Amino acid sequence: MAHSINLAVIPGDGIGQEVVAQGLKVLTAVLPQDVKLETKEYDLGARRWHRTGETLPDAELEALRHHDAILLGAIGDPSVPSGVLERGLLLKLRFAFDHFINLRPSKLFPNTATPLAGRPDIDFVVVREGTEGPYTGNGGSLRTGTPAEVATEVSVNTAYGVERVVRDAYERANSRPRKKLTLVHKNNVLVYAGHMWKNIFDKVGQEYPEVTTDYLHVDAATIFFVTQPERFDVIVTDNLFGDILTDLAAAVTGGIGLAASGNINPTGAFPSMFEPVHGSAPDIAGTGKADPTATILSVALLLRHLGHEAEAARIEDAVTADLAERDGTFRTTDQIGDALAARVAG
Amino acid sequence: MAHSINLAVIPGDGIGQEVVAQGLKVLTAVLPQDVKLETKEYDLGARRWHRTGETLPDAELEALRHHDAILLGAIGDPSVPSGVLERGLLLKLRFAFDHFINLRPSKLFPNTATPLAGRPDIDFVVVREGTEGPYTGNGGSLRTGTPAEVATEVSVNTAYGVERVVRDAYERANSRPRKKLTLVHKNNVLVYAGHMWKNIFDKVGQEYPEVTTDYLHVDAATIFFVTQPERFDVIVTDNLFGDILTDLAAAVTGGIGLAASGNINPTGAFPSMFEPVHGSAPDIAGTGKADPTATILSVALLLRHLGHEAEAARIEDAVTADLAERDGTFRTTDQIGDALAARVAG
Ligand SMILES: CC(C)[C@H](C(=O)O)[C@@H](O)C(=O)O
Ligand SMILES: CC(C)[C@H](C(=O)O)[C@@H](O)C(=O)O
Repeated sequence: MAHSINLAVIPGDGIGQEVVAQGLKVLTAVLPQDVKLETKEYDLGARRWHRTGETLPDAELEALRHHDAILLGAIGDPSVPSGVLERGLLLKLRFAFDHFINLRPSKLFPNTATPLAGRPDIDFVVVREGTEGPYTGNGGSLRTGTPAEVATEVSVNTAYGVERVVRDAYERANSRPRKKLTLVHKNNVLVYAGHMWKNIFDKVGQEYPEVTTDYLHVDAATIFFVTQPERFDVIVTDNLFGDILTDLAAAVTGGIGLAASGNINPTGAFPSMFEPVHGSAPDIAGTGKADPTATILSVALLLRHLGHEAEAARIEDAVTADLAERDGTFRTTDQIGDALAARVAG
Repeated sequence: MAHSINLAVIPGDGIGQEVVAQGLKVLTAVLPQDVKLETKEYDLGARRWHRTGETLPDAELEALRHHDAILLGAIGDPSVPSGVLERGLLLKLRFAFDHFINLRPSKLFPNTATPLAGRPDIDFVVVREGTEGPYTGNGGSLRTGTPAEVATEVSVNTAYGVERVVRDAYERANSRPRKKLTLVHKNNVLVYAGHMWKNIFDKVGQEYPEVTTDYLHVDAATIFFVTQPERFDVIVTDNLFGDILTDLAAAVTGGIGLAASGNINPTGAFPSMFEPVHGSAPDIAGTGKADPTATILSVALLLRHLGHEAEAARIEDAVTADLAERDGTFRTTDQIGDALAARVAG
């Protein structure tokens, strides 16, 4: 448990600014007096790129490295070509700081509208690999823009990278009451990567005899996400499948406004980074309509990662209570932040 | 419109046998007297592999090529290592016969249980690329099974392959009342393939000024599949994203028991192949619980492909009427087949 937190803050674009402000409000409110919080804001994202052409200069990457953790709002704007900020900033951070655990809990909170009939009981966590797979930027284009173009994308998977995320997922499953772990891949088609994942999954599993395991192809997994989401406890999967499944998970648990995530390096060698799963939503930026809850729940993950379990739980309990008591009246971004800050301070 | 149909039938594994029998029953019932139907069954799948070690010998591939179309039940059994039959038989057929259009309509039929609250109005078709992307089998494993293993999967995309499927999707969109086409990819991360897809999509779109277009990242698309599926009309996407999205589409439209598909080569150079989206479901094989409707709807796609539009529509209308009138009593595979055969003959 850290007695001071030196936090880097990257508000980013669109609603990023607004939701991060609420995250910091709740963080300040929940921390005990004796924990010193220092924050430093980094101006990165679309505006910076338009102004200077920079996405993430080396000096800033180096400065970020010395923080205890990073809180990120959202990156991206339609005025920037697709991929520039994603590859040059967001993914660059995840890769530079070796965030091999992309942790995404999904829970259907009380009083929350799910598109699913019958309100199944949903409470699972996706452990998404964060540093390999089709996200490595490996690939290229030949004869770009011509009728003879060939474009490739290479999914790179290493036993080193797969084993560490699979082990982390077993640890998490082992510490949860249901102790169930599902591997999601597509090993009937992606046979090289898929068989490696499955073999490592089976091998590491021998060390966790109490964990019940299961394997699903990614296509079948999407079916169960909507027909039987209560069957999942912990899911481990590759970077791209995890990206797809966690947006779907957010949708079935009442929306992207509540989906938190942590890009974690459990070794502590680099700062971990916490961010809502949602994007910068430029269409509602500045309107006060953005729900800061996903960011506030990401702050809870941040606190847990830094050893402040009690404070993390206090935020999560506050969100549960807040949602249970809401009456459907519209609340602004700021009002939701205030309500949650008041609860955690109380 | 063909006046004789020389059909290859691959019942395959598990419930494949049972559902294909019903598909043939309905096909026979719907065809006018003057259309001569010849069928030849091919014994391919898990049993064959266990018996002879073969998945798809060259002689059979050559024989299949001379049919007008192929009706396939389902391939796969847990007793066969994952990937053997998929790569060696099913995908081998799709690639050998250059099935570049993998057509998967999704419709919420009357009286059908969807997991979605509020029963949105769903009626879209996914045009999935069928011969490229991560399905090419391009990739490998180095130091297999050791802690130093590296496994790769290469998604191969060509302008040739992308343009032909994109063009087909525009044609389909243009012929539908809503004239809307959505491209789904992940061009903010898979920048090489993603940008090529997007550029070709935009370029071909200039020839279809009446078609409204839209682009979604695959993760965002899964959200709309559950929160707003009525927004989709025609979707065009790559092989892997199409695989994932069409299982999800089947789930939200009342299940895999109704999802039909066609692996189509529109040039006619090779026979096209029609199959339900579902798998061989060994757990219910032989129990009479398999719903043959997906196969019967695949027969409708087959008839439409061969120019028998009236007969295709008759099957689809029969399915709609049958579902609208069903009262929830359990019906066996055979009973459903009989009911639909009676309707189309009537
Ligand atoms: C913005 C994009 C690069 C990112 C991803 O694909 O990982 C996002 O979708 C996410 O899930 O955090
Ligand atoms: C069985 C498998 C190879 C196949 C695929 O991935 O294409 C199936 O899931 C499908 O959608 O037809």
